[in-house]
Amino acid sequence: MARVVVDVMPKQEILDPQGQAVASALPRLGFEGISEVRQGKRFELEVAADVDDETLSRIAETMLANPVIEDWTVRREEA
Amino acid sequence: MARVVVDVMPKQEILDPQGQAVASALPRLGFEGISEVRQGKRFELEVAADVDDETLSRIAETMLANPVIEDWTVRREEA
Repeated sequence: MARVVVDVMPKQEILDPQGQAVASALPRLGFEGISEVRQGKRFELEVAADVDDETLSRIAETMLANPVIEDWTVRREEA
Repeated sequence: MARVVVDVMPKQEILDPQGQAVASALPRLGFEGISEVRQGKRFELEVAADVDDETLSRIAETMLANPVIEDWTVRREEA
């Protein structure tokens, strides 16, 4: 078993209303100095040892991210 | 400016219906060997140099995570 992390973030040129909402709320709550917030998704997968990187890449691209509006990274975490 | 990443995940004892939906869809789509999927959130913050770790921790705890059901980590990324 391996732990795999897939991070999915809105592409830089895509508006991110969730992140903008957080960014604009922070000063109202007394937190200064945060100029930008972007919100994405993080997936943690428990993966059998024989699942290869290409399969993981296809899972990320087809199931976890929307390639039109999101970038993603796949990495294996040390146990 | 520094890049700060806050990862927010459902606590291990909390049901995660989004992750379970992904996990149960994978075999139907021909992807075998994924035994568990958990879905959380990833925030990327652009932070002024004078924002200290304690402030970042309070932002994560009060704005980004729900401490009742979620765990979170805060880390500064290398530029």
